[in-house]
Amino acid sequence: MFHRTSPYKKRNELQNSQQSNNPILTTMSQQEQTQPRLGPIEVATVETLSLDPSVPDLVLADVFLRQHAKQSTDQQQQPSRVRAFYASSKPERLHFSSTRQLHAAIVTCGGLCPGLNNVVRAITLTLHHEYHVQRVYGIQGGWHGFNDKEYPPMILTPESVDSVHHQGGSFLRTSRGGLDLDKVHTFLTKYQISLLFILGGDGTHRGAYKVHEHCRVNNLDVAVVGIPKTIDNDIDYIDRSFGFHTAVEAAQASIRTALVEAKCTVPNGIGVIKLMGREAGFLAAYAALGSGGDVDAVLVPEVPVVLEGPDGILPFLQRRVLEKGYAVCVVAEGAGQELLEAIQETEKGSGNKKLPPIAEYVRDEIIKFFVKVGSECRMKYVDPSYSVRSQPANAADSLYCIQLGTGAVYGAMAGYTGFSVGRVNNRIVYIPIPQLVATSPRFMNPDGDIWQQILSTTGQPSPLKKTQSEAEL
Amino acid sequence: MFHRTSPYKKRNELQNSQQSNNPILTTMSQQEQTQPRLGPIEVATVETLSLDPSVPDLVLADVFLRQHAKQSTDQQQQPSRVRAFYASSKPERLHFSSTRQLHAAIVTCGGLCPGLNNVVRAITLTLHHEYHVQRVYGIQGGWHGFNDKEYPPMILTPESVDSVHHQGGSFLRTSRGGLDLDKVHTFLTKYQISLLFILGGDGTHRGAYKVHEHCRVNNLDVAVVGIPKTIDNDIDYIDRSFGFHTAVEAAQASIRTALVEAKCTVPNGIGVIKLMGREAGFLAAYAALGSGGDVDAVLVPEVPVVLEGPDGILPFLQRRVLEKGYAVCVVAEGAGQELLEAIQETEKGSGNKKLPPIAEYVRDEIIKFFVKVGSECRMKYVDPSYSVRSQPANAADSLYCIQLGTGAVYGAMAGYTGFSVGRVNNRIVYIPIPQLVATSPRFMNPDGDIWQQILSTTGQPSPLKKTQSEAEL
Amino acid sequence: MFHRTSPYKKRNELQNSQQSNNPILTTMSQQEQTQPRLGPIEVATVETLSLDPSVPDLVLADVFLRQHAKQSTDQQQQPSRVRAFYASSKPERLHFSSTRQLHAAIVTCGGLCPGLNNVVRAITLTLHHEYHVQRVYGIQGGWHGFNDKEYPPMILTPESVDSVHHQGGSFLRTSRGGLDLDKVHTFLTKYQISLLFILGGDGTHRGAYKVHEHCRVNNLDVAVVGIPKTIDNDIDYIDRSFGFHTAVEAAQASIRTALVEAKCTVPNGIGVIKLMGREAGFLAAYAALGSGGDVDAVLVPEVPVVLEGPDGILPFLQRRVLEKGYAVCVVAEGAGQELLEAIQETEKGSGNKKLPPIAEYVRDEIIKFFVKVGSECRMKYVDPSYSVRSQPANAADSLYCIQLGTGAVYGAMAGYTGFSVGRVNNRIVYIPIPQLVATSPRFMNPDGDIWQQILSTTGQPSPLKKTQSEAEL
Amino acid sequence: MFHRTSPYKKRNELQNSQQSNNPILTTMSQQEQTQPRLGPIEVATVETLSLDPSVPDLVLADVFLRQHAKQSTDQQQQPSRVRAFYASSKPERLHFSSTRQLHAAIVTCGGLCPGLNNVVRAITLTLHHEYHVQRVYGIQGGWHGFNDKEYPPMILTPESVDSVHHQGGSFLRTSRGGLDLDKVHTFLTKYQISLLFILGGDGTHRGAYKVHEHCRVNNLDVAVVGIPKTIDNDIDYIDRSFGFHTAVEAAQASIRTALVEAKCTVPNGIGVIKLMGREAGFLAAYAALGSGGDVDAVLVPEVPVVLEGPDGILPFLQRRVLEKGYAVCVVAEGAGQELLEAIQETEKGSGNKKLPPIAEYVRDEIIKFFVKVGSECRMKYVDPSYSVRSQPANAADSLYCIQLGTGAVYGAMAGYTGFSVGRVNNRIVYIPIPQLVATSPRFMNPDGDIWQQILSTTGQPSPLKKTQSEAEL
Repeated sequence: MFHRTSPYKKRNELQNSQQSNNPILTTMSQQEQTQPRLGPIEVATVETLSLDPSVPDLVLADVFLRQHAKQSTDQQQQPSRVRAFYASSKPERLHFSSTRQLHAAIVTCGGLCPGLNNVVRAITLTLHHEYHVQRVYGIQGGWHGFNDKEYPPMILTPESVDSVHHQGGSFLRTSRGGLDLDKVHTFLTKYQISLLFILGGDGTHRGAYKVHEHCRVNNLDVAVVGIPKTIDNDIDYIDRSFGFHTAVEAAQASIRTALVEAKCTVPNGIGVIKLMGREAGFLAAYAALGSGGDVDAVLVPEVPVVLEGPDGILPFLQRRVLEKGYAVCVVAEGAGQELLEAIQETEKGSGNKKLPPIAEYVRDEIIKFFVKVGSECRMKYVDPSYSVRSQPANAADSLYCIQLGTGAVYGAMAGYTGFSVGRVNNRIVYIPIPQLVATSPRFMNPDGDIWQQILSTTGQPSPLKKTQSEAEL
Repeated sequence: MFHRTSPYKKRNELQNSQQSNNPILTTMSQQEQTQPRLGPIEVATVETLSLDPSVPDLVLADVFLRQHAKQSTDQQQQPSRVRAFYASSKPERLHFSSTRQLHAAIVTCGGLCPGLNNVVRAITLTLHHEYHVQRVYGIQGGWHGFNDKEYPPMILTPESVDSVHHQGGSFLRTSRGGLDLDKVHTFLTKYQISLLFILGGDGTHRGAYKVHEHCRVNNLDVAVVGIPKTIDNDIDYIDRSFGFHTAVEAAQASIRTALVEAKCTVPNGIGVIKLMGREAGFLAAYAALGSGGDVDAVLVPEVPVVLEGPDGILPFLQRRVLEKGYAVCVVAEGAGQELLEAIQETEKGSGNKKLPPIAEYVRDEIIKFFVKVGSECRMKYVDPSYSVRSQPANAADSLYCIQLGTGAVYGAMAGYTGFSVGRVNNRIVYIPIPQLVATSPRFMNPDGDIWQQILSTTGQPSPLKKTQSEAEL
Repeated sequence: MFHRTSPYKKRNELQNSQQSNNPILTTMSQQEQTQPRLGPIEVATVETLSLDPSVPDLVLADVFLRQHAKQSTDQQQQPSRVRAFYASSKPERLHFSSTRQLHAAIVTCGGLCPGLNNVVRAITLTLHHEYHVQRVYGIQGGWHGFNDKEYPPMILTPESVDSVHHQGGSFLRTSRGGLDLDKVHTFLTKYQISLLFILGGDGTHRGAYKVHEHCRVNNLDVAVVGIPKTIDNDIDYIDRSFGFHTAVEAAQASIRTALVEAKCTVPNGIGVIKLMGREAGFLAAYAALGSGGDVDAVLVPEVPVVLEGPDGILPFLQRRVLEKGYAVCVVAEGAGQELLEAIQETEKGSGNKKLPPIAEYVRDEIIKFFVKVGSECRMKYVDPSYSVRSQPANAADSLYCIQLGTGAVYGAMAGYTGFSVGRVNNRIVYIPIPQLVATSPRFMNPDGDIWQQILSTTGQPSPLKKTQSEAEL
Repeated sequence: MFHRTSPYKKRNELQNSQQSNNPILTTMSQQEQTQPRLGPIEVATVETLSLDPSVPDLVLADVFLRQHAKQSTDQQQQPSRVRAFYASSKPERLHFSSTRQLHAAIVTCGGLCPGLNNVVRAITLTLHHEYHVQRVYGIQGGWHGFNDKEYPPMILTPESVDSVHHQGGSFLRTSRGGLDLDKVHTFLTKYQISLLFILGGDGTHRGAYKVHEHCRVNNLDVAVVGIPKTIDNDIDYIDRSFGFHTAVEAAQASIRTALVEAKCTVPNGIGVIKLMGREAGFLAAYAALGSGGDVDAVLVPEVPVVLEGPDGILPFLQRRVLEKGYAVCVVAEGAGQELLEAIQETEKGSGNKKLPPIAEYVRDEIIKFFVKVGSECRMKYVDPSYSVRSQPANAADSLYCIQLGTGAVYGAMAGYTGFSVGRVNNRIVYIPIPQLVATSPRFMNPDGDIWQQILSTTGQPSPLKKTQSEAEL
């Protein structure tokens, strides 16, 4: 029987493979540590960036230079490589000779995300106002919309998109799946599309690249541009996905609800909030820190869920309740897959019944645990579901969406194709789709800033550390 | 008579001096431009980062590599330097031998800003939970609070700061000015302070550095740490100042108000929104883009305000009103100082009356202009004043504030002093105060991404271009 | 086997019994209808209100005078009675000789509700500022808090309640059940309580009346005052319960979420929102109208749920989806109890499995129905759960809470006991607890303004009408 | 020279004239007061409502029965009259024989108000869905839109109004003034309008009545219906005007801003918030109470503003600042007109300079007062201006707007004309326009619940009491 690999397992495998390729991540010996001192701090300079004169302006992607690497003697002699992306800018020369006769099309695929309308609006306005293109089509309902009989395309004008950014969702509507290259081909030729903008996740980007390849093979002069969309922030390289800030903000309402209910109910109120995040726990972790620290524990797919024992989350929550009367726990929907799989294995003989989802499972286990230890708790379970993604974009995301939309048009007009746009180290860059999808969906690094900040802020037990020290034996 | 230099003038001078020192900014010749093509994009790699093994982990500050520089032959031969900051991390060795007997103090200076309470809370919790310090004092009312008779310090505990992040403002209260090194000295010794955390702007940081120097000279073993606070986002190097996202979000309410009023009123509704920003127009520009593009024009200190003539803002607004029935204009409070100074000069002979502030001045000039051209407008003026800064921090800022508070404590515990913490290219770093204040307040670069995006989004005339082309003659 | 009576059945019975007692509700004959005309409207005057001089100012409770009654000849001869309540006002003479030595106590019971903190704060401030009472106790955790060993009472001062109204929930905390008259007696005498303010629902009010009776029998001179609290707005007589407006507002977020998801998803998006309301559908109905009309159907306990057939909700939703591509349905958690009971009966033979709650049941039936008719739908299910009740009070409720708190103190100081306060026809009045609980929880009248407005706004089928016309045959 | 009468003066005059006509308001003698007692409360019944069988269902308008009246012997013998309005309900017989050929028109006049779009939408949907009228016109830009050359009317359909209620303002746009009966006549006949719905304030209603009279005289069979719109809540009889709750809610942001700024600034922070309210202080008073009691003083047009002396607001604010470190004051824009007039009189000789508006004046006087008493204050002045009225309607107002729109259509279809709709004692009723405008704009009663609650909540000095006791001498 096939068991899908849990993100935790996958992350471990990926990390291991990355580590072997990346000599930066060797361990630092103790004597190399900086001596404690009370002294001023200095600014370092890093020398000798040799630039390739044949490429445009660049944005460095890897800016965190770990000195761990310096112990490795070979590292000192051969320079490390820092990846960089082409910076987006308004092209001085255009690929298309006459933009006034151009036709463009925009499509939104996959689940909703705050800011879809903003990006579609920004693309439309840039095409019209800066390049005066002849026509911009809005393809309805995702890939299905290339079937123009069922879903005739909308004509997008500055007037028709005037207020769409004040609404959540996608006014072009969306759906999952449905890519049919023949239909796309027919549509592109029928409507004489030269620029195709595709908003979607890593799956959609793989589809977009197929469209790009199809166009190349079939000599269709179509610039195919992806704009990465994911509520889970799990597309690699980019600082964050558009709409993510809005989702993190929207999740606050649920954390606040669970906090108020848990705090105001006697005895032993416990709030459990389920948040999106099938493979990556970014939303759960950012939302927990974004609450300003109102959360006592966070469960994410990247870190194994341990319920009982000294590092168990259940006795930890009980301790918290003893200390302050209540506790609040955020659970990413994809957390603990390895746990549920294990239980599933165990129960197989007895009929292999379908497992409950993790958040509901944790909710029920907390209740049982309190009963088991001779106490009781008042469970306050909150599932915001779609509400974190159906909001209009907040200001930070609105700004980002304008940059993405404009950058997508600039890249296409410059003659690039098969690429995606994103913000890397605060700059809008072009990212080749093959590279983007190679490592997407990405996982949150349990050794990285955010998860370490979660551990520091919550004080929750860290099963990974245990695992690692065990591994060190 | 002394005329204060306008930010626009200062920016120009600064830019000119920077250009002369920085050969990267030479012009790019035409033949070097990339040829238009419809082709795939590539990821570049930048080689040869030679690292100094004596410093800790680093974060590169300069990640935007302009190829403009490559034509300059001397540039090709001598490597460019990339500035980098020490990355913040939990120190493995501590400067202070016994943290359990440490006393720390926190003070908030200057105007309010979203997130002050969050940072104070994060410092307090990190000190208590990770280092179990003996006592954390909250100094009341800014520098004045070192006078402990009038403003006795509060004792901060995890319980007392439990919910402060849900409130706007600073529960420690604040004020402007009032640094008295003698009082600070007395306070630090009386309360046996070893760690002093100072939240404030560039002026406060200059004060903080004086305190640091004073401690060094007087052999007080006190770690002095600044946390940069500015609603104007005008502190250099950092990605953004904490609270800035919240302020940009809060400004949306006023833009929306002006938009609704202008759009729904006949004839010729014009909305004018005044936003904070004495020297730098970041808030105005980010708020305009953060509205998703509902703004037709933005006036900032960094770009000269031209009212009439072909590049004038008044005829531009009139054209917009003709096109769509209404227009919306955001004015930073510090914009157009050179304009008002010029008028002041002219009117000097007639009594040198006090000039109206720019936003009110622009408001009145718009009304006059419409009358002059034989029309009329319905002026909708909105001044949110303090409302952009008195909010509780939103989720993105709350997360940032936790990172800042934790990072500040980590740096101090590691033995650093005279430094500030900030996020640079998405990483928390330590920045020496002298370097931080040397170029703060910073200005928004009119050639940078944000202002170019404003020009592209609004289509408003760009007096700078005019100026530059004139300069080229 | 006992089957609990569904609210729908209970309402019918209640209505029938009321009708028999109330000759106003006889049918109006056709010829009595006003003739159609296009003419001005007039103000009527109603004469002859004979007032009883022994009572204080009055507020009429029954202000809707149906002319249906006028056909009944006996009605014309004997005057109808209009109920009225004593209006709350600051008493000119006080029951307690020296308020400065008074002790008061406040307790919050049952589930959370927006505004609890506001009412507690208003009582505290009025007692302190207007009557300078010696002490106000906050009893913790509901009735359980009379056990002062486990839950020692808090001392409430103007300072301690200064900001509590900015938080949701109850800072006194709460719980369900736990009334122990002995413990209450002990507490009241130990702490010398003369005024006891009890915030809670109809169950709590029944308990409060027991406390009142106990005090009367045992010659404890304690004014026992209830303040009606119910998120379901199901306490009789009052215009609305405090916090209800806030809950209706909070429910909008979920309706908006379901609307955006349903509208933006192809094919056939259907949003289902579950809202609180076990016995009464006020919240569901008000939230649906409060959305401005974004809801296509509302299911409430007071109206039987019919799924299929010509008046069925399933084919109705399908028609809506055909018309405009999507539909949105609000389901009160207590709706359709008669339906689930019926299904339960049917399935009894086959094992009597536990039924799913109604909202989930309707959700699943919609999906099945679309499959059955050869289509498919995208189900968007949203359950805001506690989020509608954990908010801080909005402005309208905050104002109301101040009035309630002040009125409660005024009534007690005037010497009343065993009463509750509420707003009736926009005036704060005193309501005897026995009367209040006699008809609470109340139901929404399907012939009343709100449900008729729902039918008019949604166009949804009305099973009640069907039943009535059938009854007319 | 003409001095406009201040609302305070006007109110006094009106009250006096009402008192003379209304024997209910005689003073209550001491011996009639209810004796203090700690006893249960009772429900009164009011007998003998004799109904006029010729009118439809009624809603009583006067529900507050003051027993003050009972001392007056003549009152006991002759029954008091209670005003009542026709209740709105779906008409069983229609005035118009064929609704399917009807044309209707809707216009919004005067300033913006939350809910305008909701009412227009509800009228449009009711006309289309319940009466299937042929055409609904949206007249653009207020009365000016009857000039259809400059402002061609929009055609309103269920589709075109689908989402308008999510936007603030009026999508029909609006303006002040411009009624031209000839143009109205031409428009009504040209477009064959049978139903005209006019949203506006008391001025607009006077215009609407002129249109009604014009139609009557000229035998145009047009139902003219007003829907009362006022952000000031100053239209008589109705419980509240639509949008008022939303405005009160929106004002909270400014009160919160001023509170945070005042509270967090040393020394002596004082927040002053200017709110709309030219003649009536409802918005200021409701917003102050709606803040939950965060406001220390409220200045409204109905109560004279006294700055200095024992009842002065300036020394009162100083006392508050001494007590708790800060104070917050709400000023209605129309407050203190008698004060400014008096100052104007005084200064006449010296040049009669234009007076500052009251809020700015109070702001400056506070600063001066603190200097005068040897202290200083930090002034935090906030003017939300249009932001209180440009919001989309909140849930409570959305519900109300649906009821108003539906009720307006029902009344017109029933054949009424020259009336307005409003909620009176929680029921939608029809109010004759002449009666509505006779006492509009109304004033807030300083002896009524709300102002007494303000006095009780703030503890601010009450100049009226002073005046009254003086009058009693």
